[in-house]
Amino acid sequence: MTEAKDTATIIAMERAALDRWCQGDPSGFLEICAPDVVYFDPTLDRRLDGLEALARLYEAVRGQISASHHELLNPKVQLCGEAGVLTFNFVSESGGEMHRWNCTEVYRRTPDGWRIIQTHWSFTQPLGK
Amino acid sequence: MTEAKDTATIIAMERAALDRWCQGDPSGFLEICAPDVVYFDPTLDRRLDGLEALARLYEAVRGQISASHHELLNPKVQLCGEAGVLTFNFVSESGGEMHRWNCTEVYRRTPDGWRIIQTHWSFTQPLGK
Repeated sequence: MTEAKDTATIIAMERAALDRWCQGDPSGFLEICAPDVVYFDPTLDRRLDGLEALARLYEAVRGQISASHHELLNPKVQLCGEAGVLTFNFVSESGGEMHRWNCTEVYRRTPDGWRIIQTHWSFTQPLGK
Repeated sequence: MTEAKDTATIIAMERAALDRWCQGDPSGFLEICAPDVVYFDPTLDRRLDGLEALARLYEAVRGQISASHHELLNPKVQLCGEAGVLTFNFVSESGGEMHRWNCTEVYRRTPDGWRIIQTHWSFTQPLGK
């Protein structure tokens, strides 16, 4: 089952990168992003384009993020030719506060393995129910 | 240039669906979503899975949305095998208020044309700068 293997690989890559992220290390993501990655998060005023711009954003928070607990909920991978679309909800606990996220990652199959070409992080119900 | 044609087709489909959406008609999107579409927006408490669930959500707001002005900003399409990843910022004006959004749509090439398999809408800077 190649599909099952691809799905498991993508989820494992995301988990590994998130484990490092939650310990203040953004390199887990930077190492698996493609040069043409595009990126949204709720702190930015627009889409961010390219790995260089993403690296600048991430280097500015290196060592500053620490989550005592984090969990990737209900991950799903839709395989579509050379693309793998991973979606999940995410919870993290930091300083006694819970944070809830929506996430979409699009991975592209390359000779070097799967690489992220699109990341979209957003808050789950940011304005309350 | 097939790539340029695919890019233009996807952006035109999105614009057409948004034009209908902003006049209260969700069918523009429902007609171009795949059965296995997954969906995030800032009102939901988790990812929504499948066209049936999305149709229920959209039918509940049919006729209730009206934007006097809307604009798709800086759309970009990343083509990746059978997938087309469209990202853009979006502004809409409704009741004198401006709303700013981040959006990711993943389109899949099918014998019937491009179909959306993933939608992620989020507010741009929901908690302010």
